[in-house]
Amino acid sequence: MLIQRLSIIGVGLIGGSLVRALKRVGACGEVVGCGRNTANLQHAIDLGVIDRYDTNPASAVKNADMVVVAVPLGTMASMFATIREALFPQAIITDVGSAKATVVADARQHLGEHLPRFVPGHPIAGTEKSGVAASFAELFENRRVILTPLPETDSQAHAKVTTMWKTTKAEVVDMSVEHHDKVLAATSHLPHVLAYSLVETLANMETRTEIFRFAAGGFRDFTRIASSDPRMWHDICLANRDAILQVLGEFSTDLAQLAEAIQQGDSQRIENIFTRAKTARDQFNG
Amino acid sequence: MLIQRLSIIGVGLIGGSLVRALKRVGACGEVVGCGRNTANLQHAIDLGVIDRYDTNPASAVKNADMVVVAVPLGTMASMFATIREALFPQAIITDVGSAKATVVADARQHLGEHLPRFVPGHPIAGTEKSGVAASFAELFENRRVILTPLPETDSQAHAKVTTMWKTTKAEVVDMSVEHHDKVLAATSHLPHVLAYSLVETLANMETRTEIFRFAAGGFRDFTRIASSDPRMWHDICLANRDAILQVLGEFSTDLAQLAEAIQQGDSQRIENIFTRAKTARDQFNG
Repeated sequence: MLIQRLSIIGVGLIGGSLVRALKRVGACGEVVGCGRNTANLQHAIDLGVIDRYDTNPASAVKNADMVVVAVPLGTMASMFATIREALFPQAIITDVGSAKATVVADARQHLGEHLPRFVPGHPIAGTEKSGVAASFAELFENRRVILTPLPETDSQAHAKVTTMWKTTKAEVVDMSVEHHDKVLAATSHLPHVLAYSLVETLANMETRTEIFRFAAGGFRDFTRIASSDPRMWHDICLANRDAILQVLGEFSTDLAQLAEAIQQGDSQRIENIFTRAKTARDQFNG
Repeated sequence: MLIQRLSIIGVGLIGGSLVRALKRVGACGEVVGCGRNTANLQHAIDLGVIDRYDTNPASAVKNADMVVVAVPLGTMASMFATIREALFPQAIITDVGSAKATVVADARQHLGEHLPRFVPGHPIAGTEKSGVAASFAELFENRRVILTPLPETDSQAHAKVTTMWKTTKAEVVDMSVEHHDKVLAATSHLPHVLAYSLVETLANMETRTEIFRFAAGGFRDFTRIASSDPRMWHDICLANRDAILQVLGEFSTDLAQLAEAIQQGDSQRIENIFTRAKTARDQFNG
Protein backbone atom coordinates (compact mmCIF):
# COMPACT_ATOMS: atom_id res chain seq x y z
CA MET A 1 0.00 0.00 0.00
CA LEU A 2 1.30 3.43 -0.99
CA ILE A 3 0.38 5.10 2.29
CA GLN A 4 -0.16 3.21 5.58
CA ARG A 5 -1.59 6.01 7.63
CA LEU A 6 -2.55 9.31 6.07
CA SER A 7 -3.06 12.40 8.17
CA ILE A 8 -5.03 15.24 6.58
CA ILE A 9 -4.79 18.54 8.41
CA GLY A 10 -7.73 20.54 7.06
CA VAL A 11 -10.50 18.36 5.65
CA GLY A 12 -12.02 20.56 2.95
CA LEU A 13 -12.56 20.41 -0.79
CA ILE A 14 -8.94 19.63 -1.66
CA GLY A 15 -8.04 17.35 1.24
CA GLY A 16 -11.36 15.52 1.00
CA SER A 17 -11.07 14.99 -2.74
CA LEU A 18 -7.49 13.72 -2.39
CA VAL A 19 -8.54 11.11 0.16
CA ARG A 20 -11.53 10.03 -1.92
CA ALA A 21 -9.26 9.54 -4.96
CA LEU A 22 -6.71 7.55 -2.94
CA LYS A 23 -9.32 5.40 -1.20
CA ARG A 24 -11.02 4.63 -4.48
CA VAL A 25 -7.98 2.65 -5.62
CA GLY A 26 -7.03 1.35 -2.18
CA ALA A 27 -3.86 3.45 -2.08
CA CYS A 28 -4.06 4.30 1.60
CA GLY A 29 -4.86 2.71 4.93
CA GLU A 30 -6.27 4.61 7.86
CA VAL A 31 -7.08 8.25 7.27
CA VAL A 32 -7.03 10.62 10.22
CA GLY A 33 -8.64 14.01 9.72
CA CYS A 34 -7.73 17.07 11.74
CA GLY A 35 -9.46 20.41 12.00
CA ARG A 36 -11.13 22.77 14.44
CA ASN A 37 -14.74 22.23 13.39
CA THR A 38 -15.88 18.91 14.84
CA ALA A 39 -19.21 19.05 12.98
CA ASN A 40 -17.27 19.23 9.71
CA LEU A 41 -15.00 16.38 10.81
CA GLN A 42 -17.97 14.23 11.80
CA HIS A 43 -19.52 15.00 8.43
CA ALA A 44 -16.29 13.81 6.79
CA ILE A 45 -16.60 10.53 8.70
CA ASP A 46 -20.26 10.20 7.68
CA LEU A 47 -19.27 10.75 4.05
CA GLY A 48 -16.67 7.99 4.39
CA VAL A 49 -13.84 10.39 3.60
CA ILE A 50 -11.91 9.98 6.86
CA ASP A 51 -11.85 7.06 9.27
CA ARG A 52 -11.47 9.06 12.47
CA TYR A 53 -10.65 12.55 13.58
CA ASP A 54 -8.50 14.30 16.11
CA THR A 55 -8.76 18.02 16.75
CA ASN A 56 -5.21 18.11 18.10
CA PRO A 57 -2.77 18.32 15.16
CA ALA A 58 0.11 16.87 17.20
CA SER A 59 -1.76 13.68 17.98
CA ALA A 60 -3.40 13.60 14.53
CA VAL A 61 -0.02 13.21 12.80
CA LYS A 62 1.32 10.56 15.20
CA ASN A 63 2.51 7.48 13.32
CA ALA A 64 1.35 8.87 9.98
CA ASP A 65 3.75 8.11 7.11
CA MET A 66 2.13 10.83 4.99
CA VAL A 67 0.93 14.17 6.32
CA VAL A 68 -0.98 16.50 4.01
CA VAL A 69 -1.25 20.02 5.38
CA ALA A 70 -4.28 21.60 3.72
CA VAL A 71 -4.76 24.65 5.92
CA PRO A 72 -5.03 28.33 4.90
CA LEU A 73 -1.69 29.91 3.99
CA GLY A 74 -1.89 32.23 6.99
CA THR A 75 -1.90 29.35 9.46
CA MET A 76 0.78 27.22 7.78
CA ALA A 77 3.65 28.43 10.00
CA SER A 78 1.93 27.75 13.28
CA MET A 79 0.70 24.36 12.01
CA PHE A 80 4.26 23.31 11.11
CA ALA A 81 5.44 24.42 14.54
CA THR A 82 2.62 22.49 16.21
CA ILE A 83 3.23 19.18 14.47
CA ARG A 84 7.04 19.20 14.30
CA GLU A 85 7.71 17.36 17.57
CA ALA A 86 4.99 14.78 16.97
CA LEU A 87 5.99 13.79 13.45
CA PHE A 88 7.15 10.24 12.82
CA PRO A 89 10.92 10.45 11.91
CA GLN A 90 10.28 9.06 8.40
CA ALA A 91 7.03 10.95 7.84
CA ILE A 92 6.67 12.69 4.49
CA ILE A 93 4.95 16.07 4.66
CA THR A 94 3.36 17.96 1.82
CA ASP A 95 0.97 20.91 1.48
CA VAL A 96 -1.54 22.18 -1.05
CA GLY A 97 -1.04 25.94 -0.69
CA SER A 98 -1.78 28.22 -3.64
CA ALA A 99 1.43 30.24 -3.14
CA LYS A 100 4.73 28.55 -2.42
CA ALA A 101 7.39 31.06 -1.29
CA THR A 102 5.77 31.77 2.07
CA VAL A 103 5.04 28.09 2.72
CA VAL A 104 8.66 27.20 2.00
CA ALA A 105 9.86 29.98 4.32
CA ASP A 106 7.46 28.72 7.01
CA ALA A 107 8.72 25.15 6.56
CA ARG A 108 12.37 26.21 6.73
CA GLN A 109 11.68 28.03 9.93
CA HIS A 110 9.47 25.48 11.68
CA LEU A 111 9.93 21.96 10.32
CA GLY A 112 13.55 21.57 11.51
CA GLU A 113 14.94 18.08 10.94
CA HIS A 114 11.84 17.17 8.89
CA LEU A 115 12.55 19.75 6.15
CA PRO A 116 14.16 17.23 3.71
CA ARG A 117 10.95 15.20 3.72
CA PHE A 118 8.74 18.22 3.10
CA VAL A 119 7.63 18.41 -0.53
CA PRO A 120 5.78 21.68 -1.32
CA GLY A 121 2.85 21.07 -3.62
CA HIS A 122 -0.10 22.78 -5.28
CA PRO A 123 -2.90 20.98 -7.11
CA ILE A 124 -4.29 23.29 -9.80
CA ALA A 125 -7.86 22.27 -9.23
CA GLY A 126 -10.82 23.42 -7.24
CA THR A 127 -14.11 25.13 -7.67
CA GLU A 128 -15.64 28.21 -6.09
CA LYS A 129 -17.17 25.85 -3.54
CA SER A 130 -15.47 24.97 -0.26
CA GLY A 131 -15.76 22.24 2.31
CA VAL A 132 -15.63 18.47 2.45
CA ALA A 133 -19.26 18.21 1.27
CA ALA A 134 -18.13 19.56 -2.12
CA SER A 135 -15.24 17.07 -2.41
CA PHE A 136 -15.23 14.36 -5.08
CA ALA A 137 -12.74 11.70 -6.18
CA GLU A 138 -12.46 12.99 -9.75
CA LEU A 139 -11.42 16.54 -8.87
CA PHE A 140 -7.79 16.07 -9.92
CA GLU A 141 -8.30 13.96 -13.04
CA ASN A 142 -6.44 15.50 -15.97
CA ARG A 143 -5.54 18.47 -13.79
CA ARG A 144 -2.01 19.50 -13.01
CA VAL A 145 -0.29 19.30 -9.66
CA ILE A 146 2.79 21.47 -9.32
CA LEU A 147 5.54 20.38 -6.92
CA THR A 148 8.29 22.82 -5.99
CA PRO A 149 10.98 20.62 -4.37
CA LEU A 150 13.84 22.35 -2.56
CA PRO A 151 17.58 21.72 -3.02
CA GLU A 152 17.53 19.68 0.19
CA THR A 153 14.37 17.72 -0.62
CA ASP A 154 14.86 13.97 -0.25
CA SER A 155 14.38 12.23 -3.60
CA GLN A 156 12.33 9.38 -2.12
CA ALA A 157 9.97 11.82 -0.44
CA HIS A 158 9.66 13.70 -3.72
CA ALA A 159 8.96 10.44 -5.57
CA LYS A 160 6.31 9.35 -3.08
CA VAL A 161 4.39 12.63 -3.21
CA THR A 162 4.60 12.47 -7.02
CA THR A 163 3.15 8.96 -6.97
CA MET A 164 0.42 10.01 -4.55
CA TRP A 165 -0.79 12.72 -6.92
CA LYS A 166 -0.43 10.54 -9.99
CA THR A 167 -2.73 8.07 -8.25
CA THR A 168 -5.46 10.73 -8.41
CA LYS A 169 -4.93 10.81 -12.21
CA ALA A 170 -3.34 14.23 -12.10
CA GLU A 171 -0.31 15.23 -14.18
CA VAL A 172 2.56 16.13 -11.85
CA VAL A 173 4.96 18.90 -12.88
CA ASP A 174 8.02 20.21 -11.03
CA MET A 175 8.74 23.92 -10.98
CA SER A 176 10.78 26.42 -9.00
CA VAL A 177 9.06 28.22 -6.15
CA GLU A 178 9.52 31.64 -7.78
CA HIS A 179 8.25 30.48 -11.13
CA HIS A 180 5.19 28.86 -9.58
CA ASP A 181 4.26 32.02 -7.73
CA LYS A 182 4.64 34.18 -10.83
CA VAL A 183 2.59 31.89 -13.08
CA LEU A 184 -0.17 31.45 -10.50
CA ALA A 185 -0.35 35.18 -9.80
CA ALA A 186 -1.20 35.66 -13.46
CA THR A 187 -3.55 32.76 -14.11
CA SER A 188 -5.37 32.44 -10.83
CA HIS A 189 -4.69 35.13 -8.26
CA LEU A 190 -5.19 38.16 -10.51
CA PRO A 191 -8.47 36.84 -11.99
CA HIS A 192 -9.82 36.31 -8.48
CA VAL A 193 -8.80 39.83 -7.44
CA LEU A 194 -10.51 41.25 -10.54
CA ALA A 195 -13.69 39.24 -10.03
CA TYR A 196 -14.00 40.27 -6.38
CA SER A 197 -13.28 43.89 -7.29
CA LEU A 198 -15.82 43.95 -10.12
CA VAL A 199 -18.60 42.51 -7.98
CA GLU A 200 -17.72 45.02 -5.24
CA THR A 201 -18.03 47.87 -7.77
CA LEU A 202 -21.37 46.67 -9.10
CA ALA A 203 -22.75 45.96 -5.63
CA ASN A 204 -22.05 49.59 -4.71
CA MET A 205 -23.93 51.04 -7.67
CA GLU A 206 -27.39 52.57 -7.25
CA THR A 207 -28.77 50.21 -9.85
CA ARG A 208 -27.43 47.18 -7.98
CA THR A 209 -30.66 45.18 -7.97
CA GLU A 210 -31.25 45.61 -11.67
CA ILE A 211 -27.65 44.96 -12.49
CA PHE A 212 -27.85 41.49 -11.07
CA ARG A 213 -31.32 41.00 -12.54
CA PHE A 214 -30.18 41.71 -16.07
CA ALA A 215 -26.88 39.92 -15.93
CA ALA A 216 -26.52 37.10 -18.42
CA GLY A 217 -24.38 34.02 -18.87
CA GLY A 218 -21.17 35.92 -19.63
CA PHE A 219 -21.42 37.78 -16.35
CA ARG A 220 -22.23 34.59 -14.46
CA ASP A 221 -19.11 32.85 -15.74
CA PHE A 222 -16.96 35.95 -15.32
CA THR A 223 -17.87 36.47 -11.68
CA ARG A 224 -18.27 32.87 -10.49
CA ILE A 225 -14.87 32.93 -8.78
CA ALA A 226 -16.02 35.86 -6.63
CA SER A 227 -17.99 33.24 -4.68
CA SER A 228 -14.71 31.69 -3.50
CA ASP A 229 -13.76 31.63 0.18
CA PRO A 230 -12.81 35.22 1.20
CA ARG A 231 -10.45 34.15 3.99
CA MET A 232 -8.51 31.78 1.75
CA TRP A 233 -8.12 34.43 -0.94
CA HIS A 234 -7.16 37.04 1.62
CA ASP A 235 -4.33 34.72 2.68
CA ILE A 236 -3.26 34.14 -0.92
CA CYS A 237 -3.15 37.89 -1.63
CA LEU A 238 -0.88 38.48 1.32
CA ALA A 239 1.27 35.38 0.74
CA ASN A 240 1.90 36.12 -2.93
CA ARG A 241 1.70 39.88 -2.64
CA ASP A 242 4.72 40.85 -4.75
CA ALA A 243 3.91 38.65 -7.73
CA ILE A 244 0.23 39.67 -7.62
CA LEU A 245 1.02 43.39 -7.42
CA GLN A 246 3.46 43.01 -10.31
CA VAL A 247 0.96 41.45 -12.71
CA LEU A 248 -1.86 43.65 -11.40
CA GLY A 249 0.29 46.66 -12.29
CA GLU A 250 0.82 45.36 -15.82
CA PHE A 251 -2.89 44.72 -16.18
CA SER A 252 -3.81 48.19 -14.88
CA THR A 253 -1.49 49.79 -17.42
CA ASP A 254 -3.02 47.78 -20.26
CA LEU A 255 -6.54 48.55 -19.05
CA ALA A 256 -5.79 52.28 -18.85
CA GLN A 257 -4.51 52.16 -22.45
CA LEU A 258 -7.67 50.38 -23.60
CA ALA A 259 -9.80 52.95 -21.75
CA GLU A 260 -7.85 55.70 -23.51
CA ALA A 261 -8.45 54.05 -26.89
CA ILE A 262 -12.19 53.86 -26.14
CA GLN A 263 -12.20 57.47 -24.94
CA GLN A 264 -10.48 58.62 -28.13
CA GLY A 265 -12.60 56.41 -30.36
CA ASP A 266 -9.41 54.79 -31.66
CA SER A 267 -11.09 52.01 -33.66
CA GLN A 268 -7.94 50.36 -34.91
CA ARG A 269 -6.35 50.09 -31.48
CA ILE A 270 -9.50 48.71 -29.84
CA GLU A 271 -10.02 46.12 -32.54
CA ASN A 272 -6.34 45.10 -32.47
CA ILE A 273 -6.44 44.49 -28.73
CA PHE A 274 -9.69 42.52 -28.90
CA THR A 275 -8.48 40.48 -31.86
CA ARG A 276 -5.13 39.59 -30.24
CA ALA A 277 -6.93 38.61 -27.03
CA LYS A 278 -9.47 36.47 -28.85
CA THR A 279 -6.67 34.70 -30.75
CA ALA A 280 -4.78 33.98 -27.52
CA ARG A 281 -7.91 32.81 -25.71
CA ASP A 282 -9.02 30.60 -28.60
CA GLN A 283 -5.60 28.88 -28.56
CA PHE A 284 -6.16 27.98 -24.93
CA ASN A 285 -8.13 24.75 -25.10
CA GLY A 286 -11.36 24.71 -23.21
CA MET B 1 -49.99 33.73 -37.92
CA LEU B 2 -48.05 36.29 -35.89
CA ILE B 3 -45.71 37.28 -38.74
CA GLN B 4 -46.52 36.73 -42.43
CA ARG B 5 -43.14 37.52 -43.87
CA LEU B 6 -40.10 38.00 -41.65
CA SER B 7 -36.98 39.71 -42.93
CA ILE B 8 -33.79 39.11 -40.96
CA ILE B 9 -30.95 41.49 -41.78
CA GLY B 10 -27.86 39.71 -40.42
CA VAL B 11 -28.31 35.97 -40.04
CA GLY B 12 -26.04 35.12 -37.09
CA LEU B 13 -26.41 33.61 -33.62
CA ILE B 14 -29.19 35.97 -32.48
CA GLY B 15 -31.13 36.30 -35.74
CA GLY B 16 -30.82 32.57 -36.45
CA SER B 17 -31.95 31.57 -32.98
CA LEU B 18 -34.92 33.96 -33.13
CA VAL B 19 -36.11 32.45 -36.41
CA ARG B 20 -35.65 28.89 -35.12
CA ALA B 21 -37.73 29.69 -32.03
CA LEU B 22 -40.51 31.31 -34.11
CA LYS B 23 -40.60 28.55 -36.73
CA ARG B 24 -40.73 25.88 -34.03
CA VAL B 25 -44.19 27.07 -33.04
CA GLY B 26 -45.31 28.10 -36.52
CA ALA B 27 -45.32 31.78 -35.60
CA CYS B 28 -43.99 33.03 -38.92
CA GLY B 29 -44.41 32.44 -42.64
CA GLU B 30 -41.64 33.03 -45.15
CA VAL B 31 -38.29 34.06 -43.74
CA VAL B 32 -35.96 36.08 -45.93
CA GLY B 33 -32.36 36.35 -44.80
CA CYS B 34 -30.05 39.17 -45.79
CA GLY B 35 -26.31 39.51 -45.40
CA ARG B 36 -23.12 40.02 -47.36
CA ASN B 37 -21.71 36.51 -47.03
CA THR B 38 -23.59 34.26 -49.45
CA ALA B 39 -21.89 31.10 -48.12
CA ASN B 40 -23.29 31.91 -44.66
CA LEU B 41 -26.73 32.63 -46.12
CA GLN B 42 -26.71 29.37 -48.09
CA HIS B 43 -25.68 27.60 -44.87
CA ALA B 44 -28.69 29.19 -43.14
CA ILE B 45 -30.94 27.78 -45.89
CA ASP B 46 -29.33 24.34 -45.54
CA LEU B 47 -29.95 24.47 -41.79
CA GLY B 48 -33.60 25.29 -42.43
CA VAL B 49 -33.30 28.64 -40.64
CA ILE B 50 -34.25 30.88 -43.57
CA ASP B 51 -36.34 30.07 -46.64
CA ARG B 52 -34.46 32.24 -49.13
CA TYR B 53 -31.88 34.99 -49.15
CA ASP B 54 -31.29 38.29 -50.79
CA THR B 55 -27.99 40.15 -50.45
CA ASN B 56 -29.70 43.46 -51.21
CA PRO B 57 -31.29 44.78 -47.99
CA ALA B 58 -33.77 46.95 -49.90
CA SER B 59 -35.26 43.99 -51.75
CA ALA B 60 -34.90 41.70 -48.71
CA VAL B 61 -37.35 43.83 -46.69
CA LYS B 62 -39.90 44.20 -49.49
CA ASN B 63 -43.37 43.14 -48.31
CA ALA B 64 -42.05 42.01 -44.92
CA ASP B 65 -44.42 42.82 -42.05
CA MET B 66 -41.60 42.33 -39.55
CA VAL B 67 -37.99 43.37 -40.12
CA VAL B 68 -35.35 42.38 -37.56
CA VAL B 69 -32.11 44.32 -38.00
CA ALA B 70 -29.37 42.19 -36.43
CA VAL B 71 -26.29 43.93 -37.81
CA PRO B 72 -23.28 45.30 -35.89
CA LEU B 73 -23.96 48.61 -34.14
CA GLY B 74 -21.50 50.40 -36.42
CA THR B 75 -23.52 49.57 -39.54
CA MET B 76 -26.98 50.24 -38.10
CA ALA B 77 -27.26 53.81 -39.48
CA SER B 78 -26.40 52.91 -43.05
CA MET B 79 -28.69 49.86 -42.89
CA PHE B 80 -31.65 52.00 -41.79
CA ALA B 81 -30.89 54.44 -44.62
CA THR B 82 -30.69 51.59 -47.12
CA ILE B 83 -34.00 49.94 -46.24
CA ARG B 84 -36.11 53.05 -45.52
CA GLU B 85 -37.49 53.52 -49.02
CA ALA B 86 -38.22 49.82 -49.53
CA LEU B 87 -40.08 49.20 -46.28
CA PHE B 88 -43.74 48.19 -46.45
CA PRO B 89 -45.78 51.14 -44.99
CA GLN B 90 -47.05 49.02 -42.09
CA ALA B 91 -43.79 47.16 -41.52
CA ILE B 92 -42.64 46.85 -37.92
CA ILE B 93 -38.90 47.20 -37.45
CA THR B 94 -36.85 46.10 -34.45
CA ASP B 95 -33.16 45.56 -33.73
CA VAL B 96 -31.08 43.47 -31.33
CA GLY B 97 -28.22 45.89 -30.63
CA SER B 98 -26.35 45.67 -27.31
CA ALA B 99 -26.41 49.45 -26.81
CA LYS B 100 -29.51 51.49 -27.47
CA ALA B 101 -28.77 55.24 -27.49
CA THR B 102 -26.81 55.16 -30.75
CA VAL B 103 -29.34 52.86 -32.43
CA VAL B 104 -32.17 55.20 -31.45
CA ALA B 105 -30.21 58.20 -32.76
CA ASP B 106 -29.56 56.30 -36.00
CA ALA B 107 -33.24 55.41 -36.32
CA ARG B 108 -34.37 58.98 -35.68
CA GLN B 109 -32.02 60.18 -38.38
CA HIS B 110 -32.65 57.53 -41.02
CA LEU B 111 -36.00 55.78 -40.59
CA GLY B 112 -38.13 58.86 -41.29
CA GLU B 113 -41.86 58.07 -41.46
CA HIS B 114 -41.19 54.53 -40.18
CA LEU B 115 -39.86 55.69 -36.80
CA PRO B 116 -43.16 55.10 -34.90
CA ARG B 117 -43.05 51.44 -35.91
CA PHE B 118 -39.42 50.99 -34.85
CA VAL B 119 -39.18 49.21 -31.49
CA PRO B 120 -35.59 49.16 -30.14
CA GLY B 121 -34.77 45.81 -28.55
CA HIS B 122 -31.98 43.84 -26.91
CA PRO B 123 -32.18 40.15 -26.08
CA ILE B 124 -29.88 39.48 -23.09
CA ALA B 125 -28.66 36.19 -24.43
CA GLY B 126 -25.79 34.89 -26.44
CA THR B 127 -22.64 32.93 -26.07
CA GLU B 128 -19.06 33.66 -27.00
CA LYS B 129 -19.77 31.88 -30.28
CA SER B 130 -20.97 33.68 -33.39
CA GLY B 131 -22.69 32.73 -36.60
CA VAL B 132 -25.83 30.96 -37.69
CA ALA B 133 -24.21 27.54 -37.16
CA ALA B 134 -24.20 28.26 -33.41
CA SER B 135 -27.88 29.28 -33.37
CA PHE B 136 -30.51 27.22 -31.54
CA ALA B 137 -34.21 27.61 -30.81
CA GLU B 138 -33.80 27.55 -27.02
CA LEU B 139 -31.34 30.46 -26.78
CA PHE B 140 -33.88 32.91 -25.37
CA GLU B 141 -35.77 30.59 -23.03
CA ASN B 142 -35.96 32.11 -19.56
CA ARG B 143 -33.70 34.94 -20.71
CA ARG B 144 -34.72 38.57 -20.69
CA VAL B 145 -35.35 40.77 -23.68
CA ILE B 146 -35.24 44.49 -23.00
CA LEU B 147 -37.30 46.81 -25.19
CA THR B 148 -36.69 50.57 -25.04
CA PRO B 149 -39.75 52.06 -26.75
CA LEU B 150 -39.66 55.78 -27.62
CA PRO B 151 -42.32 58.40 -26.82
CA GLU B 152 -43.51 58.17 -30.42
CA THR B 153 -43.48 54.37 -30.62
CA ASP B 154 -46.79 52.96 -31.87
CA SER B 155 -48.43 50.80 -29.20
CA GLN B 156 -49.42 48.08 -31.67
CA ALA B 157 -45.86 47.82 -32.96
CA HIS B 158 -44.62 47.63 -29.38
CA ALA B 159 -47.17 44.91 -28.58
CA LYS B 160 -46.26 42.87 -31.62
CA VAL B 161 -42.51 42.92 -30.91
CA THR B 162 -43.30 42.01 -27.30
CA THR B 163 -45.37 39.04 -28.48
CA MET B 164 -42.64 37.97 -30.91
CA TRP B 165 -40.09 37.73 -28.11
CA LYS B 166 -42.52 36.10 -25.69
CA THR B 167 -43.03 33.44 -28.33
CA THR B 168 -39.33 32.50 -27.89
CA LYS B 169 -40.11 31.97 -24.17
CA ALA B 170 -38.17 35.05 -23.14
CA GLU B 171 -39.32 37.48 -20.46
CA VAL B 172 -39.85 40.90 -22.02
CA VAL B 173 -39.05 44.01 -19.98
CA ASP B 174 -39.39 47.67 -20.95
CA MET B 175 -36.75 50.16 -19.93
CA SER B 176 -35.55 53.63 -20.86
CA VAL B 177 -32.72 53.89 -23.37
CA GLU B 178 -30.41 55.57 -20.86
CA HIS B 179 -31.11 53.06 -18.14
CA HIS B 180 -30.54 50.13 -20.48
CA ASP B 181 -27.17 51.47 -21.55
CA LYS B 182 -26.04 52.06 -17.97
CA VAL B 183 -27.09 48.63 -16.72
CA LEU B 184 -25.58 46.82 -19.68
CA ALA B 185 -22.32 48.77 -19.41
CA ALA B 186 -21.95 47.35 -15.90
CA THR B 187 -23.13 43.77 -16.39
CA SER B 188 -21.91 42.99 -19.86
CA HIS B 189 -19.73 45.59 -21.53
CA LEU B 190 -17.28 46.14 -18.65
CA PRO B 191 -16.76 42.39 -18.04
CA HIS B 192 -15.95 41.94 -21.73
CA VAL B 193 -13.49 44.85 -21.65
CA LEU B 194 -11.80 43.35 -18.57
CA ALA B 195 -11.62 39.85 -20.04
CA TYR B 196 -10.09 41.09 -23.29
CA SER B 197 -7.64 43.28 -21.37
CA LEU B 198 -6.58 40.48 -19.02
CA VAL B 199 -5.91 38.03 -21.83
CA GLU B 200 -3.96 40.75 -23.66
CA THR B 201 -1.81 41.30 -20.56
CA LEU B 202 -1.13 37.59 -20.07
CA ALA B 203 -0.45 37.01 -23.76
CA ASN B 204 2.26 39.66 -23.60
CA MET B 205 4.07 38.07 -20.64
CA GLU B 206 7.30 36.13 -21.14
CA THR B 207 5.75 33.13 -19.48
CA ARG B 208 2.80 33.20 -21.88
CA THR B 209 2.98 29.53 -22.86
CA GLU B 210 3.13 28.31 -19.29
CA ILE B 211 0.47 30.70 -18.16
CA PHE B 212 -2.05 29.11 -20.47
CA ARG B 213 -0.74 25.64 -19.68
CA PHE B 214 -1.30 26.00 -15.95
CA ALA B 215 -4.58 27.84 -16.10
CA ALA B 216 -7.46 26.04 -14.41
CA GLY B 217 -11.23 26.12 -14.52
CA GLY B 218 -11.59 29.49 -12.84
CA PHE B 219 -9.42 31.11 -15.50
CA ARG B 220 -11.30 29.32 -18.25
CA ASP B 221 -14.65 30.65 -17.05
CA PHE B 222 -13.26 34.10 -16.33
CA THR B 223 -11.80 34.58 -19.80
CA ARG B 224 -14.37 32.73 -21.92
CA ILE B 225 -15.97 35.99 -23.06
CA ALA B 226 -12.61 37.12 -24.51
CA SER B 227 -13.40 34.67 -27.32
CA SER B 228 -16.31 36.88 -28.40
CA ASP B 229 -16.37 38.59 -31.79
CA PRO B 230 -13.82 41.47 -31.68
CA ARG B 231 -15.59 43.59 -34.30
CA MET B 232 -18.93 43.37 -32.50
CA TRP B 233 -17.37 44.35 -29.18
CA HIS B 234 -15.40 47.15 -30.80
CA ASP B 235 -18.72 48.55 -32.02
CA ILE B 236 -20.30 48.19 -28.57
CA CYS B 237 -17.39 50.01 -26.90
CA LEU B 238 -17.75 52.95 -29.25
CA ALA B 239 -21.56 52.96 -29.20
CA ASN B 240 -21.82 52.89 -25.41
CA ARG B 241 -18.58 54.73 -24.74
CA ASP B 242 -19.77 57.14 -22.04
CA ALA B 243 -21.55 54.57 -19.87
CA ILE B 244 -18.65 52.11 -20.23
CA LEU B 245 -16.01 54.70 -19.34
CA GLN B 246 -18.10 55.75 -16.33
CA VAL B 247 -18.32 52.26 -14.81
CA LEU B 248 -14.77 51.43 -15.89
CA GLY B 249 -13.63 54.50 -13.95
CA GLU B 250 -15.48 53.35 -10.84
CA PHE B 251 -13.99 49.88 -11.20
CA SER B 252 -10.46 51.24 -11.65
CA THR B 253 -10.79 53.30 -8.48
CA ASP B 254 -12.00 50.27 -6.51
CA LEU B 255 -9.25 48.09 -7.97
CA ALA B 256 -6.56 50.65 -7.07
CA GLN B 257 -7.88 50.69 -3.50
CA LEU B 258 -7.77 46.91 -3.31
CA ALA B 259 -4.21 46.96 -4.70
CA GLU B 260 -3.29 49.49 -2.03
CA ALA B 261 -4.79 47.28 0.67
CA ILE B 262 -2.75 44.31 -0.61
CA GLN B 263 0.38 46.47 -0.82
CA GLN B 264 -0.09 47.61 2.77
CA GLY B 265 -1.04 44.16 4.02
CA ASP B 266 -4.32 45.61 5.28
CA SER B 267 -5.96 42.32 6.24
CA GLN B 268 -9.24 43.74 7.44
CA ARG B 269 -9.84 45.80 4.31
CA ILE B 270 -9.01 42.92 1.96
CA GLU B 271 -11.22 40.48 3.78
CA ASN B 272 -14.09 42.99 3.97
CA ILE B 273 -13.98 43.57 0.22
CA PHE B 274 -13.85 39.86 -0.59
CA THR B 275 -16.62 39.04 1.87
CA ARG B 276 -18.96 41.76 0.56
CA ALA B 277 -18.30 40.62 -3.00
CA LYS B 278 -18.93 36.96 -2.18
CA THR B 279 -22.18 37.86 -0.44
CA ALA B 280 -23.36 39.90 -3.45
CA ARG B 281 -22.32 37.20 -5.93
CA ASP B 282 -23.93 34.42 -3.91
CA GLN B 283 -27.23 36.35 -3.91
CA PHE B 284 -27.14 36.39 -7.69
CA ASN B 285 -28.71 33.07 -8.64
CA GLY B 286 -26.70 30.96 -10.97
